Amino acid sequence: MTISSGSARLAALTGSFGIDNVLISTVPQPSPGPRQVLVRVRAASLNFRDYLVVTGRYNPKMPLPRVPLSDGAGEVEAVGEGVTRFRRGDRVAGIFMQTWLDGDTIEAHGKSALGGAIDGVLADYVLFDQDGLVSVPAHLSFLEAATLPCAAVTAWNALVVQGRVKSGDTVLVQGTGGVSLFALQFARLAGARVIATSSSDAKLERALALGASDGINYKTTPDWDKRARQLTSGRGVDHVVEVGGSGTLARSFNAVRTQGHIAVIGILSGLAGELNIAPILHKHLTIHGIYVGSRAMFEDMNRALTLHQLHPVIDRVFPFEQIHDALRYMESAAHTGKIVIDYGA
Amino acid sequence: MTISSGSARLAALTGSFGIDNVLISTVPQPSPGPRQVLVRVRAASLNFRDYLVVTGRYNPKMPLPRVPLSDGAGEVEAVGEGVTRFRRGDRVAGIFMQTWLDGDTIEAHGKSALGGAIDGVLADYVLFDQDGLVSVPAHLSFLEAATLPCAAVTAWNALVVQGRVKSGDTVLVQGTGGVSLFALQFARLAGARVIATSSSDAKLERALALGASDGINYKTTPDWDKRARQLTSGRGVDHVVEVGGSGTLARSFNAVRTQGHIAVIGILSGLAGELNIAPILHKHLTIHGIYVGSRAMFEDMNRALTLHQLHPVIDRVFPFEQIHDALRYMESAAHTGKIVIDYGA
Amino acid sequence: MTISSGSARLAALTGSFGIDNVLISTVPQPSPGPRQVLVRVRAASLNFRDYLVVTGRYNPKMPLPRVPLSDGAGEVEAVGEGVTRFRRGDRVAGIFMQTWLDGDTIEAHGKSALGGAIDGVLADYVLFDQDGLVSVPAHLSFLEAATLPCAAVTAWNALVVQGRVKSGDTVLVQGTGGVSLFALQFARLAGARVIATSSSDAKLERALALGASDGINYKTTPDWDKRARQLTSGRGVDHVVEVGGSGTLARSFNAVRTQGHIAVIGILSGLAGELNIAPILHKHLTIHGIYVGSRAMFEDMNRALTLHQLHPVIDRVFPFEQIHDALRYMESAAHTGKIVIDYGA
Amino acid sequence: MTISSGSARLAALTGSFGIDNVLISTVPQPSPGPRQVLVRVRAASLNFRDYLVVTGRYNPKMPLPRVPLSDGAGEVEAVGEGVTRFRRGDRVAGIFMQTWLDGDTIEAHGKSALGGAIDGVLADYVLFDQDGLVSVPAHLSFLEAATLPCAAVTAWNALVVQGRVKSGDTVLVQGTGGVSLFALQFARLAGARVIATSSSDAKLERALALGASDGINYKTTPDWDKRARQLTSGRGVDHVVEVGGSGTLARSFNAVRTQGHIAVIGILSGLAGELNIAPILHKHLTIHGIYVGSRAMFEDMNRALTLHQLHPVIDRVFPFEQIHDALRYMESAAHTGKIVIDYGA
Repeated sequence: MTISSGSARLAALTGSFGIDNVLISTVPQPSPGPRQVLVRVRAASLNFRDYLVVTGRYNPKMPLPRVPLSDGAGEVEAVGEGVTRFRRGDRVAGIFMQTWLDGDTIEAHGKSALGGAIDGVLADYVLFDQDGLVSVPAHLSFLEAATLPCAAVTAWNALVVQGRVKSGDTVLVQGTGGVSLFALQFARLAGARVIATSSSDAKLERALALGASDGINYKTTPDWDKRARQLTSGRGVDHVVEVGGSGTLARSFNAVRTQGHIAVIGILSGLAGELNIAPILHKHLTIHGIYVGSRAMFEDMNRALTLHQLHPVIDRVFPFEQIHDALRYMESAAHTGKIVIDYGA
Repeated sequence: MTISSGSARLAALTGSFGIDNVLISTVPQPSPGPRQVLVRVRAASLNFRDYLVVTGRYNPKMPLPRVPLSDGAGEVEAVGEGVTRFRRGDRVAGIFMQTWLDGDTIEAHGKSALGGAIDGVLADYVLFDQDGLVSVPAHLSFLEAATLPCAAVTAWNALVVQGRVKSGDTVLVQGTGGVSLFALQFARLAGARVIATSSSDAKLERALALGASDGINYKTTPDWDKRARQLTSGRGVDHVVEVGGSGTLARSFNAVRTQGHIAVIGILSGLAGELNIAPILHKHLTIHGIYVGSRAMFEDMNRALTLHQLHPVIDRVFPFEQIHDALRYMESAAHTGKIVIDYGA
Repeated sequence: MTISSGSARLAALTGSFGIDNVLISTVPQPSPGPRQVLVRVRAASLNFRDYLVVTGRYNPKMPLPRVPLSDGAGEVEAVGEGVTRFRRGDRVAGIFMQTWLDGDTIEAHGKSALGGAIDGVLADYVLFDQDGLVSVPAHLSFLEAATLPCAAVTAWNALVVQGRVKSGDTVLVQGTGGVSLFALQFARLAGARVIATSSSDAKLERALALGASDGINYKTTPDWDKRARQLTSGRGVDHVVEVGGSGTLARSFNAVRTQGHIAVIGILSGLAGELNIAPILHKHLTIHGIYVGSRAMFEDMNRALTLHQLHPVIDRVFPFEQIHDALRYMESAAHTGKIVIDYGA
Repeated sequence: MTISSGSARLAALTGSFGIDNVLISTVPQPSPGPRQVLVRVRAASLNFRDYLVVTGRYNPKMPLPRVPLSDGAGEVEAVGEGVTRFRRGDRVAGIFMQTWLDGDTIEAHGKSALGGAIDGVLADYVLFDQDGLVSVPAHLSFLEAATLPCAAVTAWNALVVQGRVKSGDTVLVQGTGGVSLFALQFARLAGARVIATSSSDAKLERALALGASDGINYKTTPDWDKRARQLTSGRGVDHVVEVGGSGTLARSFNAVRTQGHIAVIGILSGLAGELNIAPILHKHLTIHGIYVGSRAMFEDMNRALTLHQLHPVIDRVFPFEQIHDALRYMESAAHTGKIVIDYGA
């Protein structure tokens, strides 16, 4: 599909929350102001957060209309005055929090999160401050590059930055969603062993094919924590990439070794719940809450992706106009890896 | 009081759990084997854990009899063959986990915890492996030195080792128990500001006298988390030394700044409870479970105590024979600082 | 003195290197562009680097004219479009490298160093990108605030960020220049002991008055490294803030403890020299080269300065027009603390 | 060859320094005391340090006779009273410093270095304290396991512990000696890229076969530092494993990126020399002196070796009786990887 010069598609959550309220319209092509970069978005990817945003569960008070989706990749169409980091034609992706460039995060960074606090990337043309973009690895297609900003940076931050995963460690990843598969891949790059859990033997096969040494089906082995201990000769795993939230955290406390590390990333199984916190203390655990990461982490991660010519795992690609189907597919949780939106050529 | 040469008092939890089942008997003075050190204990201190141990809530399956109490200080009475670290007359204290000497902790260290996994220090003479002792600062009495092994090392590990507290940080300490007051003192040594919470204005006065900049009475100000945010101009505190457990953790999540640090140390208000873990993720928090610390941490802490000629806060001293009253006083939670047992001269 | 509206003084190293080639002229008052802040500079301070810059020893290929001096403080006179961090009347200081905001440094940051790679602050009005400024502590005068950007941030980075100085540590500072006195003060804030060296007993008295526990006159005690070991009971100091360069580094290697830390900050005694590097290896030392620090470090430091109401040590104040005398005074090395330039009211 | 029960070979540097003064004699088989383990050594490996020790350059005041060699592996022949960590038949290796178990190192650890401060492993039977041994990976022969205690632990400490090497980093290793090849292998396990330097194209071929991406012959490309910068697109490498000492350090300063890391490990090209230290400061470098490592590091490394079934690179094997030839071969510097001593079956 081609978009006529000077006009472009833009999809916004309009009126009230709900997948069907993501309305596609045609808008004029914007122009970059000082230090701004106009990006012709070529692909986007979905995160579970996008589903929560659209259905109003992420922030019920979010003002509408809002352009959803945090993760997009494309090429630089035009640059404004004073832009030094990019030029026309560069292949780029937006960073999740537009103002978290390096170092620690602060509360203000959250106010620059794409597709949440501010408009996201579900549009043919998006304006970014030049600081809010990174170059993407040359070996990745736009479809692949669009999977990186949220899920991949989150996994990198969890394991490499906060977790300081090292060769010989064992990492337990839960499920086969976007973050979990990136965590699997990054753990393998770092020389770690990976144990994956899933409710599906087919998905576990996929995890094994990606380099996991062991899969645990938590449907057939509900006490997957004990199994993880057995698989590590009783020692426990060094890291858990926890995406389940309070529903799985108690078992993660058991699966991890003394003075082990839990990266709390997702809240798929519920925000609140009864939780015995004594193991945190008795096992001298470290728990890191991970909320994506900085531009510097993204750039470090890109160096690793490039060195290893690593490709993200894409589950399924939907065209731009089928964004609603894509969100419903996310809702179904049937995916293994990333759900991607193709904006067309 | 004097103990006759060759015999000595020993108090053990006998038969079943309960304060009244701590029975004092007279036993022969032991002799040190190879690499062992015989310590003439001169003072001990109580921790809330000791109360839980004696009443059977710490480990209901603990085999009895067991000598309770982890924290003791005294002088070296005799040394066995091959002892190089100490000699007769040295002033020493036992380390909480006898085998955690340096570096990270492992599960096995827990099996060497005094007054829990193994017999403790409620006896005139106790045999230690030479590795299980540290020299105590010269400016401290035995009564003072006996307060250090559990509570002080815990506070040091929480703030200095795991928390890397630095000058200009703000630390929130909960209550005025042993760990909290040591945390207050160590935070001040490190150049941090301290906000203390308590249910008692009198105890808050004590905290202010020890260097806290602000006190919050959580009886009269139940939303102490909001008050802590106000006191830090909305930024939130850098560190919370969390002793309340699940009953207070939700408010600690709110009181702490983005990418702040919570040291989970105690479980006074309950092990389990409903807990919304989303703030861990959204605020990019770090939570460290702290279970005392290593001998190397104890020695580093002693250097700080010595440099600053710092004295622990002792609430009340009981003679050896009144151990039962001391445990009941701990139960009453009326104390500010440490409860100490004086073994007599 | 007052400057007439619309015109202002500017001093630039012109024609060739040399103190006398710093020429003062009158220039029009600049206007802030987008995201720029116009600062009415009220004070500046000198660093040894400024002396090296002006005399051509810092970078003999530096293009001239160049406005020297990296460290200035003043108030915001006007803000350009899109400025969100400051408003007119705010009290601010420039950051040394205008683009090192947070996280690690990269080569490109060096190209934004004030008074070296780019024009500095020796002018009544200076334009900054809004990102290149920090608010200064309210309790400091402009003369005091102007001492912070290079020397204080360097000392903070050396001890607090890279050195992770902790309570009970011993820090050795060399001499009584700007960085050394800030290091002394920050070490004390952090609860560390300080040993100071100097060639002058009078300067050592000053160091003791500021909180050093011990002074070593290296003229009368040339083997100050041995003395430092004695003062630490043979253990060695934990940190050396090394300002002397290769002329003193060998002794620093001896003065520091096994696995100790040396922050290499200055090169007063020569860039190159014969150096036995074996102790680095055998003592398992960590050496950090420190080249100022990031804006985030500056802001953390300001929190500490504010909490402790700490005041920098100013040796002497020169009016703007006497910049040449000020530079010659720096050359003489007679100072204790900072040399400051007062721009007048 | 078989040794008769009750007697055993022991080789000691006797009378004065020199390879020919390593004299082999027959001694009675020792018996383990309390907490001691008698190891039947099956293989040893040589480090450059052993050559320095034997020729008197390591410590000219070393008291003789001394049993040389730090690195040995074998099986437990007998255990003394109180030994809990091992039993007869276990496959073990000695740790380089017998008392550095975990955490940081202190001066006292140096006094327990095998084959230097205390007698080493060049004997059929060696007594160890039980704390001074680790289990060796099951997939390694004794010849392979004997290569680990000094060179491999040094490389692990340099890159993994101190350097925190991560996926995507670039590591420059100098030469193809034992430490350098382990560094190459560990960097690859950690997902890093490796650039190797050598004076020999044949040795570079070996490095490439082991996973290096690039080799630089410093004979034909004397400015290997510039080449390393080119190979990293001008950024510089993230880590240098520096084995050359002052002869190569200046080029390493140039090859490494801003805020990069140099692990100083060896002193092959001379202890002292003219050295411009300005780059340490201007590039904000971190230099770690690495002197082997702790038992905990050894154990972590063994987990990585086991997970990846990694085999050390052995250059050549000499029988016990040819220890003199082995030392002369070390002197020739013709090796690629480790020189190993086979004690026979």
